[in-house]
Amino acid sequence: MKRIIVQKFGGTSVADTDKIKNVAKTVIKEKNNGNDVVVVVSAMGHTTDYLVKMAKDISKVPSGREMDMLLSTGEGVSIALLAMAIQAEGYEAVSFNAMQIGILTENVHTKARIVKIETEKIKKNLNEGKVVVVAGFQGVTENGEITTLGRGGSDTSAVALAAALNAERCDIYTDVEGVYTTDPRVVPNASKLDNISYEEMLELAHAGANVLHPRSVETAKLNSVPLRVRSSFKTDNLGTLILGVDKMEIDRPVTGVAEDSSQTRIVVCEVPDRPGIAAIIFTKLAKQNISVDMIIQSYARKASHTNDIAFTVDSVDADKTIETLNSLKEELQCGEIQVDKDIAKVSIVGAGMIDRPGIASAMFDTLARLGVNIKMISTSEIKISCLVDREDAAKAVKALHEEFDLSSDVVADVKGDLPQV
Amino acid sequence: MKRIIVQKFGGTSVADTDKIKNVAKTVIKEKNNGNDVVVVVSAMGHTTDYLVKMAKDISKVPSGREMDMLLSTGEGVSIALLAMAIQAEGYEAVSFNAMQIGILTENVHTKARIVKIETEKIKKNLNEGKVVVVAGFQGVTENGEITTLGRGGSDTSAVALAAALNAERCDIYTDVEGVYTTDPRVVPNASKLDNISYEEMLELAHAGANVLHPRSVETAKLNSVPLRVRSSFKTDNLGTLILGVDKMEIDRPVTGVAEDSSQTRIVVCEVPDRPGIAAIIFTKLAKQNISVDMIIQSYARKASHTNDIAFTVDSVDADKTIETLNSLKEELQCGEIQVDKDIAKVSIVGAGMIDRPGIASAMFDTLARLGVNIKMISTSEIKISCLVDREDAAKAVKALHEEFDLSSDVVADVKGDLPQV
Repeated sequence: MKRIIVQKFGGTSVADTDKIKNVAKTVIKEKNNGNDVVVVVSAMGHTTDYLVKMAKDISKVPSGREMDMLLSTGEGVSIALLAMAIQAEGYEAVSFNAMQIGILTENVHTKARIVKIETEKIKKNLNEGKVVVVAGFQGVTENGEITTLGRGGSDTSAVALAAALNAERCDIYTDVEGVYTTDPRVVPNASKLDNISYEEMLELAHAGANVLHPRSVETAKLNSVPLRVRSSFKTDNLGTLILGVDKMEIDRPVTGVAEDSSQTRIVVCEVPDRPGIAAIIFTKLAKQNISVDMIIQSYARKASHTNDIAFTVDSVDADKTIETLNSLKEELQCGEIQVDKDIAKVSIVGAGMIDRPGIASAMFDTLARLGVNIKMISTSEIKISCLVDREDAAKAVKALHEEFDLSSDVVADVKGDLPQV
Repeated sequence: MKRIIVQKFGGTSVADTDKIKNVAKTVIKEKNNGNDVVVVVSAMGHTTDYLVKMAKDISKVPSGREMDMLLSTGEGVSIALLAMAIQAEGYEAVSFNAMQIGILTENVHTKARIVKIETEKIKKNLNEGKVVVVAGFQGVTENGEITTLGRGGSDTSAVALAAALNAERCDIYTDVEGVYTTDPRVVPNASKLDNISYEEMLELAHAGANVLHPRSVETAKLNSVPLRVRSSFKTDNLGTLILGVDKMEIDRPVTGVAEDSSQTRIVVCEVPDRPGIAAIIFTKLAKQNISVDMIIQSYARKASHTNDIAFTVDSVDADKTIETLNSLKEELQCGEIQVDKDIAKVSIVGAGMIDRPGIASAMFDTLARLGVNIKMISTSEIKISCLVDREDAAKAVKALHEEFDLSSDVVADVKGDLPQV
């Protein structure tokens, strides 16, 4: 049996018919390498925005079910056009939507999770020598309802298909050349990484790098699918390979530096120091579907027997958070609620920092030398994040990139809109 | 059980979000009449043209399968938006594509015929009080392949659904107010017909009237589905009801006058007068998928023992027809092949002409008085068609409309692009 390669092309890679013809060439190149190829595509360019705008014209709160019906048409267009483009080059191709394949999801609209993928139809068509083009982002429930997977959905479709098909590799084609040590728009001599571990990629993604959605990386890790991030336009460049830690030699303590300016810090002041208070706050926020990132509780002030509880949330959730906290004020008997939107989270990530002491202190030293005040700190085994004033973020990233020897000799060729690691 | 009304709205009726909101109001009005409502919609306005253009950009001969995948996305958009618009008015609605419903067709792409429609899902949702919005024009094969129904597809979907659901009526909403005695752009005081028989409507449709595709009328006739053609914009106007002849009193010999300028006349001159010659010609044309309309074979010339065989074909097939005939020239041992594109077919249609002599002669007299030369004649039980020079067509239509007392006292309010009967 031939090896199966899954390729995924995002909306900017299929934004018009010329770009779709280019994608067809990239697909055929892989086919000519002697592999079976399954291609996952997103909707063309700004199709989704256009469809969402029409829905908003019609209804302030369009139902999730009908939004999924509406948005799923976007990939229907791109898969058909890509299949035609491959056929126009003299190769056999066939397109399938999620319903035809059987990409089964939970019965949840606008952000369903994939439960199972049927592979029979895909394998049959691959065995007939065809390139199989599959609609990303969409799924179907057991009852035949159309669902979509939410943010990062097409990447997740591709990785899940690669897992189900036991594919050799999943190539995520995008408008950047791979994963960088930091955002090349901030640090022009950022280096492209040849490889990175799932864990590091996950931490970088959570830390604000937008190359891949954390969900697709998690799915890849869970199923041990080798993942490659590479350029749609410079297809000779192999990009960055994302693999399990055991398959990689760790030759550096820090792999990348990331910045996330999308969070808001909330401080609940003078909370009585008694058990269960934090539980009240965070249970209530969880019920509102608000994700909390960094959390710090200060030591109790002896005199007043009160704490300050500080945490960060996604800025889009800030208003809802404050509303929720205000509704709890009486129950909590707390003081003022402070809000700080002008913050940024700067993180260093590296599997090599495990068992290598001194990395955290080197980070804090670097920031201290710059006169950057650290407002909060959070750490995992392979990540250290510091919350700083937003105006300090760029210089902090530059200095940390320098400190941990991540710079390349060449200046990165930055393309596209996507922020990079 | 409530009565079921099937409503169908074409592309111009759902061309933008404002028009979709209007359609929602029309749907709700019928729902508020106490009926269960199933709505069939086409793709929005020029969506199909846009999709076809992209396909042609990519491939000169896009595969039928992928064209169907591509085009079927158009109705996915309109059904979702219409369901949202109905919900925004406070009513329950749910959209389904052909695959979800089970609109089963033959395994043929771009022009499949409907084989069977599953009604379980629709009935379940109607019983829950929901308006069911169904994608027109598309179907699915037993193997889960997406198909489309070709020209007149959405009308046919609506009629077939009405038949399967045993609906009270199928209302075809369009941008004209009903079926007219002739094209009101040619004859301003053409009358709107309150009712017409399937048979007359079929003959009018075949004779060049574009209000309904003959296929949907045939399906309605076959299943005895009462069909109403009415205006999307003037919904108080009941339009024209199309019914079986036995349900109608025939109070006029002629119901309508139609003109068809889309044909080309071909004459094969001096064909030897021996058996089997016509069969050779028309079998060969049929194999090329060329439909022949009027056929006339002259009396054999005694001296030369030859005939002339004249017939008309759709002008888009004219070149292919001539090519085919040229390839047969040796076998046929015929003379010249004459081609005349500047012709028009003028027809009078009416179930009342059965058993009422003198209608044909009144038609020929009228044309003679105008000095219009008749090039060919063909008749059915309820239709008489004359082929004339195209420049004579409009005056012939006007005079015939007058001759058979079809004029109304009011001048028709002509809207939209659709040619009318």
